[in-house]
Amino acid sequence: MSTAWKSRYALRNQRVKGSAIRELLKVTQRPEIISFGGGLPAPDVFPVKRFSEACRIVLEQHGPQALQYGPTEGHEPLREMVAQNISRYGILAKTENVLITSGSQQALDLIGKLLINSGDRVLVEAPTYLGALQAFNVYGAQFISVPVDDDGLCTDQLENSLRRGAKFMYVLPNFQNPAGVTMSEARREQVIALADKYGIPIVEDDPYGQLRFEGEHLPPLVVLDYKTLSSHNGQPPANVIYLSTFSKTLAPGIRLAWIVAPSDVIGKLALLKQAADLHTATFNQMVAHEVAKDGFLDQHVKRIRQVYRERRDAMLHALEDFFPPEVTWTHPKGGLFLWVTMPEGTDCRLLFRAALAEDVAFVPGDCFYADETADACRHMRLNFSYSAPEKIREGIRRLSVAVKMQVRHSSHMEVVH
Amino acid sequence: MSTAWKSRYALRNQRVKGSAIRELLKVTQRPEIISFGGGLPAPDVFPVKRFSEACRIVLEQHGPQALQYGPTEGHEPLREMVAQNISRYGILAKTENVLITSGSQQALDLIGKLLINSGDRVLVEAPTYLGALQAFNVYGAQFISVPVDDDGLCTDQLENSLRRGAKFMYVLPNFQNPAGVTMSEARREQVIALADKYGIPIVEDDPYGQLRFEGEHLPPLVVLDYKTLSSHNGQPPANVIYLSTFSKTLAPGIRLAWIVAPSDVIGKLALLKQAADLHTATFNQMVAHEVAKDGFLDQHVKRIRQVYRERRDAMLHALEDFFPPEVTWTHPKGGLFLWVTMPEGTDCRLLFRAALAEDVAFVPGDCFYADETADACRHMRLNFSYSAPEKIREGIRRLSVAVKMQVRHSSHMEVVH
Repeated sequence: MSTAWKSRYALRNQRVKGSAIRELLKVTQRPEIISFGGGLPAPDVFPVKRFSEACRIVLEQHGPQALQYGPTEGHEPLREMVAQNISRYGILAKTENVLITSGSQQALDLIGKLLINSGDRVLVEAPTYLGALQAFNVYGAQFISVPVDDDGLCTDQLENSLRRGAKFMYVLPNFQNPAGVTMSEARREQVIALADKYGIPIVEDDPYGQLRFEGEHLPPLVVLDYKTLSSHNGQPPANVIYLSTFSKTLAPGIRLAWIVAPSDVIGKLALLKQAADLHTATFNQMVAHEVAKDGFLDQHVKRIRQVYRERRDAMLHALEDFFPPEVTWTHPKGGLFLWVTMPEGTDCRLLFRAALAEDVAFVPGDCFYADETADACRHMRLNFSYSAPEKIREGIRRLSVAVKMQVRHSSHMEVVH
Repeated sequence: MSTAWKSRYALRNQRVKGSAIRELLKVTQRPEIISFGGGLPAPDVFPVKRFSEACRIVLEQHGPQALQYGPTEGHEPLREMVAQNISRYGILAKTENVLITSGSQQALDLIGKLLINSGDRVLVEAPTYLGALQAFNVYGAQFISVPVDDDGLCTDQLENSLRRGAKFMYVLPNFQNPAGVTMSEARREQVIALADKYGIPIVEDDPYGQLRFEGEHLPPLVVLDYKTLSSHNGQPPANVIYLSTFSKTLAPGIRLAWIVAPSDVIGKLALLKQAADLHTATFNQMVAHEVAKDGFLDQHVKRIRQVYRERRDAMLHALEDFFPPEVTWTHPKGGLFLWVTMPEGTDCRLLFRAALAEDVAFVPGDCFYADETADACRHMRLNFSYSAPEKIREGIRRLSVAVKMQVRHSSHMEVVH
C-alpha cells in the first residue's frame, strides 16, 4: 500500500531498477549449487586471526577514539598508508589526495553525484562493471559504450566515441570486471593521448590491480597522465581520478576503499560524503590500519595471488577439458573473473536456467552492458576466486552439460531457420 | 588547478557548501578549549570492553561471514533485533520494515534521493538538524520552516505552511537537535491530524528518544499515525518513515542506524542503497548485535541516561549561577543539547569569537535554520553530553564572560541608536 509515499518518489527513482544479478543470485543460495555468480573473494583466505588481534589492540589502546565520530576525509594514518602504498606503482599522492570511502561503490556514487547532471554522457567499456552503471544511472547518465577485446578497451574505436563528447570516461584497466582482460601498455598510452586531445578526464577503477598472477605490472593511467601533462605543459596531475579498495586484499565486509584525486576534487567529494554518511566507520579504518601495517598487507596479497592463481588454473583446465570447441574464453592474468563467449545466437539467460537445473550458476553477460545489444547475450561471467579448485572443476563439468545442450540447440536452430 | 574536473562539476555540487560547523569546530580542537560544539556522545561511557569481547566472539564464530559481502538490507538478526526493540514503544515493524544504514546521515541521504526532485518543498522545524538540511540540499530541496517552542513544533503555524504544499515534513519530536525541546503529546496528535488532512507524509527522526532523563515516554508519530489511519480507513501504517540509530546508545564510530518504513518503501530505499554503498559493513552489524544482545543495550542505555542527566544538571546549574538574567535557555528532558537565547540584536558569530578568546566553544544558532532570519543569530547550541560535570561548569563560567560582554555591548548599542 503506502500510497502516501509512492506518489512522491522522485524522478531519479524510476531510473533505478532492481539489479538482475541481485535477483539471480538469490536463487543460487541453495547449498547444492556451485556458484560462479558472485564477485566474492575467497572467505577461507580472510586473515581472521589478524583481524581479531587488531580489534583487540585498537580497542585496548584507542577505544574511545575508535568508537567516536571521525573526520569525513578518513583516519589520517590510513590515508597516509594508502598514499605510501600506491607510490610503489608510481602514483604520486599526499594524504590530502586520498579520501577514504565506504567501499568503492560509494566512490562511484560520490563521483556520479559530483559530475553527472541528468542527460550527461559517460563513456564506458562494453562490457563494464555493473555497479558503476547503477551508480551513474541514479544521476541520469547516458552511456557511450566502447568494446573491449583481449587487450582491453578498443582504442581504435575510442576516438569516434570521444568526438560525441562525454563528461568523463570510466575504465577498469586491470583484470577487468567482468571480462578479466587487461589493457595493454600501448592502449593505455593511446587512451591518455586521446583523453588529452579531447579534454575528457578519466575515472580509473583498479580494485584488482594488486592481484596479478603473472607478467609485469603495467603503469596505471593516472601515472601515464602525469607524464603526458608534465611533458607538454607542466601542469600538476589532474586528469585521472584513481579508485582502489581493501575489499579484494583484506576483506569486503569492512567496506573500505579510497579515491585518489587532486586535492580540490577531494575537497568537493568530501563535502558530498559528509552529506551522504558523515564519514566511514572510524573503528574499521583503525582496525584495517592495524591489520595492514608492518608489511602484513604485502605478505597477505602474495598469499591471495597464489590461491587465486591456482583457482584460475583449475577453471582454465576444466574449461579446456569439458567445454565444446565452439566456445571461447578469456585468460585473465589476475583478478577474480573470466568471460566466456558462446556461439552467435546463444541466449545466456536460457543457459542460466539450464545451468541452474544442473546446480551451477553464473552471471549472464547482458547485465554488464549499458546498451542492449544482441551480442551481450552470448556471454557469461565466471568467478574463480570463491570456490576451491576441486569444486571449480565439478562446477565447470556441470556447466558444460548445459553449455553443450545450448550449443546443440543453437546450431540446430541455425539449420531449421 | 585540476581544471579538467572543475569545469565538469554537476549543478547539484554548487548547492553543497562547506558546513559552517565543520569549519568552526576545526578551530576548537586546541586542547585548552572546552567545547560545547560537537554533537559527540561521552567517549568515557563507550562500552569498550564489551565491544572487544564481541569482536572476538564474532570473528571466532563467524569470521568468514563477518568479513564477506552481505545483503543490502542488513544483517538479518540485527534487523530482527531492531524490530523487536522498537516494539516497546508501540512501533509495529517486521524485519522487512527495517533497513540498516551507514549512520542516520545515510538514511537522510537515501530519503532525499528517493523523494526530492529539484525544487520540491520540504517542511522542516526552525531550528532543525543541520545534517538533514545538507542531505536534502544536495537534491535541490526548497525548505518551508515552521518554528519550535518549548513544546516542540508550533502546530498553530503548521496549517498555513502545509497549505503551501510539501513533499514531506521532517521532524525531530524528542529532545530535538539543536533546541533540546520535546513535542508535547497534544502537538503530536495535531501534527498527525494535519498531515492526514493535507496528505503530507512525515519523516520522524528519533536519534535521542531512548535518552530520556525524566518524565514519561511520549508516543512516536509513527504510532499515532497507525491509530489515526486504522480508525478512519483501515489502511496499513504508511504515512511516517521512522529513523533511529545506535550512534547515541552504543557508539557513533561504528556508523549504524536504521530506517523503519512500509516494505515497498524499504525495497526502493534498498535499491538506492545498493547503488550508494552496496551494504553497511557486515562486521559492524554482527558486532553491534553481539554487543547489544542479552539485555546489554538496555542496561547500557540506563547508564548513559544517568551520566547525561548529571551533565545536563551541571550545565543548567552553571547557567543559573553564571549567566545574566537577559539570557534564557531550554530545559531538555533528555538528549545531548540545550539551546540558549540571547537578547534581541545579539550576533552569536561575534559571541563565538569572544568565546574562543575565553577558550570555550559552541555552535552559533544560525547554522540550524533553512532560511536566513535575524532571529537565528540570537541562539547558541550547547552540547552537554561530551564533557564531565566540572568541565561543563568551568566552560559555562568562561562562556558567561563572553556572554556578559555581548549583553552589555548590545544594550549599549540600543542606547546609542
